Amino acid sequence: MINFSINRTAFLNSLKIVKLAISSKVVIPALSKVKISVDNEGLTLTGSNGQISIEHFLPVADENAGMVVNGSGAILLEAAFFDSIVSNLPEVTFDFKEIEQNQVLITSGKSEITLKGLDSENYPRIQEISTENPLKINVGLLKSIFSETSFAASTQESRPILTGVHLLLLENQKLKAVATDSHRLSQRVVTLEKLSENFDVVIPNKSVNGFKSVFSDDTDEIEVFLSDSQVLFRNDTTSFYTRLVEGNYPETNRLIPNDSDYTLDLTFDTASLRHTMDRARLLSSATQNGTVKLTIENDKIIASVNSPEVGSVHEEIDAIKYEGEDLVISFNPQFMIDALKVIQEPEVRIRFISGVRPFTLVPNSESVDFIQLITPVRTN
Amino acid sequence: MINFSINRTAFLNSLKIVKLAISSKVVIPALSKVKISVDNEGLTLTGSNGQISIEHFLPVADENAGMVVNGSGAILLEAAFFDSIVSNLPEVTFDFKEIEQNQVLITSGKSEITLKGLDSENYPRIQEISTENPLKINVGLLKSIFSETSFAASTQESRPILTGVHLLLLENQKLKAVATDSHRLSQRVVTLEKLSENFDVVIPNKSVNGFKSVFSDDTDEIEVFLSDSQVLFRNDTTSFYTRLVEGNYPETNRLIPNDSDYTLDLTFDTASLRHTMDRARLLSSATQNGTVKLTIENDKIIASVNSPEVGSVHEEIDAIKYEGEDLVISFNPQFMIDALKVIQEPEVRIRFISGVRPFTLVPNSESVDFIQLITPVRTN
Repeated sequence: MINFSINRTAFLNSLKIVKLAISSKVVIPALSKVKISVDNEGLTLTGSNGQISIEHFLPVADENAGMVVNGSGAILLEAAFFDSIVSNLPEVTFDFKEIEQNQVLITSGKSEITLKGLDSENYPRIQEISTENPLKINVGLLKSIFSETSFAASTQESRPILTGVHLLLLENQKLKAVATDSHRLSQRVVTLEKLSENFDVVIPNKSVNGFKSVFSDDTDEIEVFLSDSQVLFRNDTTSFYTRLVEGNYPETNRLIPNDSDYTLDLTFDTASLRHTMDRARLLSSATQNGTVKLTIENDKIIASVNSPEVGSVHEEIDAIKYEGEDLVISFNPQFMIDALKVIQEPEVRIRFISGVRPFTLVPNSESVDFIQLITPVRTN
Repeated sequence: MINFSINRTAFLNSLKIVKLAISSKVVIPALSKVKISVDNEGLTLTGSNGQISIEHFLPVADENAGMVVNGSGAILLEAAFFDSIVSNLPEVTFDFKEIEQNQVLITSGKSEITLKGLDSENYPRIQEISTENPLKINVGLLKSIFSETSFAASTQESRPILTGVHLLLLENQKLKAVATDSHRLSQRVVTLEKLSENFDVVIPNKSVNGFKSVFSDDTDEIEVFLSDSQVLFRNDTTSFYTRLVEGNYPETNRLIPNDSDYTLDLTFDTASLRHTMDRARLLSSATQNGTVKLTIENDKIIASVNSPEVGSVHEEIDAIKYEGEDLVISFNPQFMIDALKVIQEPEVRIRFISGVRPFTLVPNSESVDFIQLITPVRTN
């Protein structure tokens, strides 16, 4: 039967990580619980919502955990409730002891708390993934690729495939991420240092967000393992499993214009263009079609919105570079705000084909392979 | 027609204060708007929800506001929307100009925004209060009296009088605040330095919270003016009006036990008792009657909760002083947590009469006139 004592803070840190996968709104009651497994090696906590599963291992050897194991076993405890209990214990350490019929006694100072648990046999098994030939990648790099694309994924369940981020390894070292909701698209490509086996998967957007919370140390290197239906991201202490989105991702390469298609080529200060769009959005959100109009003619660029009920905005925008033909185009300013948010470079290059064709945004830098597409809205 | 220019930050600070009274959920449409009045003296913003009204005055003489007035008048603008617009303007200052038919043109840098407003005649008038013989009081002192009592007021509209804080001036200098929801009571008395006219009013709890947000400088002195239906708190720049709760507050003096009634007198460390109650509350919230049981016998004090579904807690509490007879009593631990939160002193004295009679908490200090009452729950 389980019997161990541990440092409270170390335990809570571990619990905090696996709790990221635990939801109280689950169909399977066992999934609202955290699985606590103890053996002579250490303590493993597991949380899952059926889509994402997180395992965190705290080794006996970890000095901060100050762990002493006197008995091994496994049990399920209501995660949110158990977290509040441990958070409120009086001392720096606590004892955790299984007493009978899946009951545990938690002792800390003069406080004795008995909690009813559930047999660990009720917990669903995580499907195993072969852990051979992993892709190794820096956490910070993977996080930024996800951030640069995942916001463009669809939130509509009508086309589930678009609710994920399309992640591919091409030519054994080009990692490409694409997301689109069919109104806008974001595509980022980075070249990895080491060669790995090519792959082609669609990771659910929710799992992308989960990944960002679980792996907090951006300098860390993680291993990525793939099966047909799952991906596993893993470092020394944490295993993050997620199911993949099923189906084939649509071909997106053909959506990206050729350089020769463009008729107008503008470069802006990223931050000041974003502020202009912020102001435009305030008024556009009060209009029927929710768009801002860009009028580019006679060497002037005017952003304007006109809401019959609320008022209007009229603003001249300075371009750093301006080359090409006149154009009038309307689009959702929120899409441009989202696009500009993920551009780290101080300047952004925006190229247009016509008032009814998608336009592209790229950082004004030769070294970054990052392109975004926004589809205009036809007004009147 | 209105025409002025102003520092954006100074304007936003003023708007932030009056917005505390403005709600988008109002029956009278004019109340979702902010009233902007300008004359040669300066700018007055007004916000109101019908219960609370706030006026904030920004004088031309205020150097931080950098105000230049070229035309006076008044207009109503949608408060939340106008706030977002001004927050997003590009420059440090902006121009505000009435153009026609209650329209204003806001100019800042190259940004021009036109907003539709409403005639200021649509704004309800604030009932005037005679500004003679005010009570003068330090903001920090009034805030702490409110904090020490208002949490005990009722949130149930079934007895509206109990949803307020009973505030009285007795003997021309004893300021007394009382609140109760009929399960617990909190009463604080302070003696003021200057004599003023006696009064007896009930201030709605929502207004008490509004007061705390509006007057941010605790060292400030404010004037308090009273009429039959309203109270006005005022300093140089801000006037905070609130309606009073109508009706007579119940007699609460008779609820407070006499010293000779008590049979058990305990003193605890305030913080550690609060932590014990925090743990007890976690389990009590999973029980039917939501109570913690205190068993005081044989020189031991045991706090315990037993939830058949979730588990149990059992904890011995150390008393700093312990004098009197054995007792078993059950109560809602949240009430004790709330009570302990507002006790600044490191020690709390708790005195009991019997297991079925209310018990009292006071800070263990001769100099503070502050008593709280909690009614036990019969659990048979």
